[in-house]
Amino acid sequence: MAQITLKDIAKALNLSPSTVSRAMRDHPAISKKTRKIVKDYAEAHKYKPNRLALQLRTNKNNTIGVIVPEIVHYFFSTVLDGIQQETESEGYNLLISHSNEDYEREVKCVETLLDARVCGILVSQSKTTVKYDHFQEILDNNVHLLFFDRICTGINTDKVVVDDYAGAFTAVEYLIESGCRNIAFLGSVPSMPISNNRRMGYEDALRKHKIAIDKKLIEVCDTVELAKKVIPEMLKLDPVPDAFFCINDEVAAYCIQIAKSLGFMVPEEVSVCGFTNSYITEVTYPRLTSVDQYGVEMGKVAARLLINRIEGREKKEGVVSRVIKTELVVKESTKPVQSIAQRY
Amino acid sequence: MAQITLKDIAKALNLSPSTVSRAMRDHPAISKKTRKIVKDYAEAHKYKPNRLALQLRTNKNNTIGVIVPEIVHYFFSTVLDGIQQETESEGYNLLISHSNEDYEREVKCVETLLDARVCGILVSQSKTTVKYDHFQEILDNNVHLLFFDRICTGINTDKVVVDDYAGAFTAVEYLIESGCRNIAFLGSVPSMPISNNRRMGYEDALRKHKIAIDKKLIEVCDTVELAKKVIPEMLKLDPVPDAFFCINDEVAAYCIQIAKSLGFMVPEEVSVCGFTNSYITEVTYPRLTSVDQYGVEMGKVAARLLINRIEGREKKEGVVSRVIKTELVVKESTKPVQSIAQRY
Repeated sequence: MAQITLKDIAKALNLSPSTVSRAMRDHPAISKKTRKIVKDYAEAHKYKPNRLALQLRTNKNNTIGVIVPEIVHYFFSTVLDGIQQETESEGYNLLISHSNEDYEREVKCVETLLDARVCGILVSQSKTTVKYDHFQEILDNNVHLLFFDRICTGINTDKVVVDDYAGAFTAVEYLIESGCRNIAFLGSVPSMPISNNRRMGYEDALRKHKIAIDKKLIEVCDTVELAKKVIPEMLKLDPVPDAFFCINDEVAAYCIQIAKSLGFMVPEEVSVCGFTNSYITEVTYPRLTSVDQYGVEMGKVAARLLINRIEGREKKEGVVSRVIKTELVVKESTKPVQSIAQRY
Repeated sequence: MAQITLKDIAKALNLSPSTVSRAMRDHPAISKKTRKIVKDYAEAHKYKPNRLALQLRTNKNNTIGVIVPEIVHYFFSTVLDGIQQETESEGYNLLISHSNEDYEREVKCVETLLDARVCGILVSQSKTTVKYDHFQEILDNNVHLLFFDRICTGINTDKVVVDDYAGAFTAVEYLIESGCRNIAFLGSVPSMPISNNRRMGYEDALRKHKIAIDKKLIEVCDTVELAKKVIPEMLKLDPVPDAFFCINDEVAAYCIQIAKSLGFMVPEEVSVCGFTNSYITEVTYPRLTSVDQYGVEMGKVAARLLINRIEGREKKEGVVSRVIKTELVVKESTKPVQSIAQRY
């Protein structure tokens, strides 16, 4: 007869695997009654946990793992920098795992970090992730979990996010006040809260200024490859967009280049605004206006909160949410704000 | 009395810790006589290896570690991409560790990856590393080690490098053939072989074309911070440099921006060439000429060689060295090559 597993017990008792796992470990969140039912069932069916895996995973070290969706991305690099500064000053080691925006790879990342016996994991979710079992597994292994930037709405745990709504609202309102009326929104897939929140900020800024929302001006365009396809098409619209609010600086930098190559003057005819305020903003021509999202600060706040959980210094029982403020950094790819007299 | 350690034995017997470690493990490279001396001494002084550490480190998993000096660097991101493609297709997991160009952190990276029980480590050395004990420790733990791009000359192990000499020679010869005569070399610290090899390529190209080497035109300038200081000073020289050959695209992109802000026309008065051919080259104005060093290819070759060692498919007993070719990609920040008639 095959060995019975945690999942078999869960199925037989109509409980979740995480409840069974926690019951076996006498977790205080599980009632004494449930713990007894689970343990009796396990004993009766000769349940044996995977000893070596258990030993290795129980014997945690002072290493923190982080899962990032994109490593070439300037924003995530700065967040990693902040995380590393904080873990180092607190005496923790850091291991980085890269999901490359791929769900299957993200599942592997979790397994690899758990096998490396980390005591906590910081995650920014991949674009393609729609199932959350692997994140639940982190918690089931008694490893602390925190989401940053791209949070997983399916798991109830600590999180640190950027104030995407306010960042987008401020940037789009600036574009309106500089005289733009046909403002395109280049966003990401709808399953990403960061993209939705920015779109809400975009739409609310238009509404406030009584500008109709035009679906033709809203596109998924979050990579250089998509930029090369989507932006030339949008520049054929009538009326032509007079501004692009982009989800990241890479897309925005290409947007400047593409608009110029098609004969548009930037910013006089087409304004461009990015998001991140990375060093690219200094080397585009004209220099790129962008929303700074303080990646280093986000990394520090996220790592500090996770370490406080690990060391029991953060006592709050429920979820802790921190919000990092943004700032619009105006450079040369947008027009100056006009005075009221000029505007109307 | 405190426990005696491996290092104590090494000191007492006037041997290196790695020799002692290998002698204790009956490594064939250590003579039987030395093995006996070490073991007798260890027994007489009641030496006890750290059992748990030993057990954990012996029980390796199918994870490969990689140590990179800079994570925001486009080149290393592309190498990581190549490494990940290869490890994934071979069924290995990947953990990334970031030394941030810091020797102490690099030592920590090694310890963290060994504690994570990786079976092989790929390293690109930090700029500030001058001691090599931590790399020797990797080998002493029977973990495979390979250097890529920035190799450690003090450790004799497999390596994959870029053909930096040829890349630099070709680029500088191109600049000469386009009419430049006062070509500046913005390099890195002299302890880095990649920088020295490029400087040799630079100097040999000048020599071939009978242009005197001018020390004032050679500077350490490998970061954006240094670029902002060094380039404006060099543009005050008399005669002013008519070309900059830069160690990376970030410095080159700033070089374009700085030269233009000081009133120089790029490329008519000042040509600029980068190294990497990252996506920044497409968003600078004018677009940046650069030497492509095929990072993805380097990552794949490095990971494949390491995995072949782990699986015993690479039989060569000595060191295996692989060289990745480069290619000059001419864009708009350099002048076209003149015909012979125009040149003289």
